[in-house]
Amino acid sequence: MKARFAIGVDLGATTVKTGVVSAAGKILYQNRLPTNGHSGPPAVIKQIEVSVRDALAHAFGKKPSGIGIGSPGVVDESGVVKSPPNIDGWDIVPLARKLGNTFPRFRIKVENDANAAAIAESRFGAGKKYPNFLFVIWGTGVGGGIILNGKIYRGPTGGAGEIGHISIDHNGPECNCGNRGCVEAYIGQRYLSQRTAEKLKSRPESKILELINRDASRIEPMYIAEAARLGDQLAREMLVEAGTFLGVAIAAVMNVMDLRVSIIGGGISASGGFVIDAIEESVRSRVLKPLRPGIKVFQARLGNDAGILGAAGLVL
Amino acid sequence: MKARFAIGVDLGATTVKTGVVSAAGKILYQNRLPTNGHSGPPAVIKQIEVSVRDALAHAFGKKPSGIGIGSPGVVDESGVVKSPPNIDGWDIVPLARKLGNTFPRFRIKVENDANAAAIAESRFGAGKKYPNFLFVIWGTGVGGGIILNGKIYRGPTGGAGEIGHISIDHNGPECNCGNRGCVEAYIGQRYLSQRTAEKLKSRPESKILELINRDASRIEPMYIAEAARLGDQLAREMLVEAGTFLGVAIAAVMNVMDLRVSIIGGGISASGGFVIDAIEESVRSRVLKPLRPGIKVFQARLGNDAGILGAAGLVL
Repeated sequence: MKARFAIGVDLGATTVKTGVVSAAGKILYQNRLPTNGHSGPPAVIKQIEVSVRDALAHAFGKKPSGIGIGSPGVVDESGVVKSPPNIDGWDIVPLARKLGNTFPRFRIKVENDANAAAIAESRFGAGKKYPNFLFVIWGTGVGGGIILNGKIYRGPTGGAGEIGHISIDHNGPECNCGNRGCVEAYIGQRYLSQRTAEKLKSRPESKILELINRDASRIEPMYIAEAARLGDQLAREMLVEAGTFLGVAIAAVMNVMDLRVSIIGGGISASGGFVIDAIEESVRSRVLKPLRPGIKVFQARLGNDAGILGAAGLVL
Repeated sequence: MKARFAIGVDLGATTVKTGVVSAAGKILYQNRLPTNGHSGPPAVIKQIEVSVRDALAHAFGKKPSGIGIGSPGVVDESGVVKSPPNIDGWDIVPLARKLGNTFPRFRIKVENDANAAAIAESRFGAGKKYPNFLFVIWGTGVGGGIILNGKIYRGPTGGAGEIGHISIDHNGPECNCGNRGCVEAYIGQRYLSQRTAEKLKSRPESKILELINRDASRIEPMYIAEAARLGDQLAREMLVEAGTFLGVAIAAVMNVMDLRVSIIGGGISASGGFVIDAIEESVRSRVLKPLRPGIKVFQARLGNDAGILGAAGLVL
């Protein structure tokens, strides 16, 4: 008989979240532990092991179909994780093999976290009906994952999906990555906040200023989104402009890969339906004509659960 | 025994070229006929049939492994061709089926022409050693094809590879396609010529002016390339800038699809090695760091033969 559940581990910068997930995509049990990224790879792996053991203890005495892990960094097909940000001293770690030594009875798969979230939306969320789509995570940075024929497209070395570093202006502002005009350099958390702070100088009436106690250093997209909800004009302008910029990059991917659907997750994407509408309008006005009738942009459905669900989806 | 050759048809805007191609990628025989695109689909199909019959008559009395056709327009998996430019009244034509009625003894495959050229470079040309690359055709327009694991990536409906309509400036000049700042709107034949004509007003010393008899309406990339060969400074500047722009779009595709190699074909790509160098430098400076060491940009090797060779490659 097929196992009806799996263990999913969402390895984040600050927290390891592990869940027992049913084949229908329900989280039946979950725990949280600090990642301890400052203590280096062995400490982090220890935390994963502790959280997996705890989850197994809550797996109803049955054997799950496997253990899936969503990890930051580039992940190759054999489960080797390269250079995840925010974990000190983690250069190249064969995470799947190491966990396999600890849990020899289980099938273990490791995938990049954005790819895992894309898989979650594909299996359990907004992408269920769409075999082909571009998933975007819009938060601190801008990342993504590409689903083709219901499967993740990893690229030759597992690095695919980096939509945030598409340049939308060859002569635009410098990005951390070395390129110019990357869409992330307009709409990633820090950049969007900076651009808004700049605008606020000439918009003293904006509700954003009240929300941040007139302290520009406190600007964050969550305040911009909250101000937008309260009807603030500048906040809406900034988010609509950001959505329009994101649409430019999404349109490029759709033209090149012949895609029509995009699903937008991550913190900033939850600012309101008007942002999703702005993205969709931007995409539709910019893709090649044959693609236009099919263009659809949705908000992701699984929110913070996408990590655990996608990780479990790797082995379900 | 495996057939050692195939028939390849390169259906162009003005000419149908058909060849007998060996498994090693040699054109053993070839013919040329006018496309007669102004006379509509039945006339065009007639020309294909005549040229294939002639090629079969030169196939050494043996049966080829099949008939491949590279066609403009969007081509679906069953060989239906949609809206090729320059053929009057061709909306949706099931080309593979129609040719199958005429040549029932043969396996018949139809593919988009840019995809066919990408396949040719993959099997017989500059891409032989590279299982994954982005092929670009840079001429009248800017198109392309994507080779993944040695096979063409067609996308869900066969429309993939439209690298020319990646915007490199969200606020740039309008493109025919409706988008703004498409790389084609900077470096496609007409646009590159216009931009050069504009610059020539303040550069009366340029050798381009001699080559076109000081008649700006005659500017074409071939004259810009010729002037560059003669050492003209403006001509080199224009082509290096164009290559740099193309690199911005290629870098976007490489970041998203995790690719490292690009092969550049089409008329303008033959302007000189310095253009290929400019593209490569632009790509390398703009892709994400993990990709940089592997970045390679090559000139295509098969030139005008790519169409026939790629078409034959579909059935070899």
